[in-house]
Amino acid sequence: MSLVDKLKWRYATKKFDTAKKLTQEQLNQLLEAIQLAPSSIGLQHYKVLVVENPEVRAKLREAAYGQPQVTDASQLIVFAAETNMDEAYGKKFIDLVAQTRNVERGALAGLEGMVLNAISSRTHEQKVLWAQKQAYIALGVLVSAAADLGIDAGPMEGFDPAKFDEILGLKEKGLTSTVIAAVGFRSEEDAFSKLIKVRKPSEELFIHV
Amino acid sequence: MSLVDKLKWRYATKKFDTAKKLTQEQLNQLLEAIQLAPSSIGLQHYKVLVVENPEVRAKLREAAYGQPQVTDASQLIVFAAETNMDEAYGKKFIDLVAQTRNVERGALAGLEGMVLNAISSRTHEQKVLWAQKQAYIALGVLVSAAADLGIDAGPMEGFDPAKFDEILGLKEKGLTSTVIAAVGFRSEEDAFSKLIKVRKPSEELFIHV
Repeated sequence: MSLVDKLKWRYATKKFDTAKKLTQEQLNQLLEAIQLAPSSIGLQHYKVLVVENPEVRAKLREAAYGQPQVTDASQLIVFAAETNMDEAYGKKFIDLVAQTRNVERGALAGLEGMVLNAISSRTHEQKVLWAQKQAYIALGVLVSAAADLGIDAGPMEGFDPAKFDEILGLKEKGLTSTVIAAVGFRSEEDAFSKLIKVRKPSEELFIHV
Repeated sequence: MSLVDKLKWRYATKKFDTAKKLTQEQLNQLLEAIQLAPSSIGLQHYKVLVVENPEVRAKLREAAYGQPQVTDASQLIVFAAETNMDEAYGKKFIDLVAQTRNVERGALAGLEGMVLNAISSRTHEQKVLWAQKQAYIALGVLVSAAADLGIDAGPMEGFDPAKFDEILGLKEKGLTSTVIAAVGFRSEEDAFSKLIKVRKPSEELFIHV
């Protein structure tokens, strides 16, 4: 089955089977997909929280208008954008490039200049938005990888980011919760799984130039 | 090969084989994946331009700091966020839901209220950002689908959105260019294809709670 067919199978799962958890291997595969997601200049402008702790999830559910998938899915994935991207962040990235590719740091001066300029030329607000957009790419990759593996995922924007940040202690870490996804397996009772997928027709969505 | 393995194969392609074009079937598959990408409340807050016209692409390349992939890839995909989401946009979505699922419009009053509130409760700027973030999800799905099909893709933020909007006449259409991706096949000469992928180690990227 092609990924397109798997994307037809998936839907924004609302009701999860609480008894069915991802295997460690399945979770690892999802996290590896997230890790492989592209980002602007490769900076991976976010961290990704994998929340399993039931007490924490109960609090998060309250901060997500009581939506049951926050507690009932196998895991809750929280994409948290970096809020303090600075010169040190850029230099650390160059260190990682040098180490990964086994090249002299000096040979990366051009890349380093580009990275530091990309960071310093943006206001604080622009940097946070930049980081948040990259997190959405990773969400798109997660949703695709989950579908590929026959795992259900429900991406969600319906939560209070300030409350999530407080519950998860994100502010102190220089992070802010941006978008979340519940992952696991659909309950047979999820009425949403029976609904026909609604999408704009091609002639409306695409413009050929 | 799993999608994760395919994501390892992919990279942000910079130099494309100008002689190798996507088949119509391959392009259709990519567009179908984009069409299936999830979005907040399913509103698909963007349109997607598929640019093949060489004259237009020459102009876009100038507006993208001369980057060759803009003209040399098989197609250039431009994700353009909606800038004028209003009550009519919301109502049109409800019409589409009613038609697709063959239900009475009246039965969708709850969903309609939610949709219209999601639109009207946001300022113009918030709506544009909301739309742009959804476009990034679709980019993540595109990158995944391309990898799945063995097609190369190079996502790009390095372009002048105002110039792109002007060249493509997007402002009049209530759209703004948000992020782009060149799709096609890597040139054997692309030095970037030989580089080891750089990613934050798991213990740095993930926080387990």
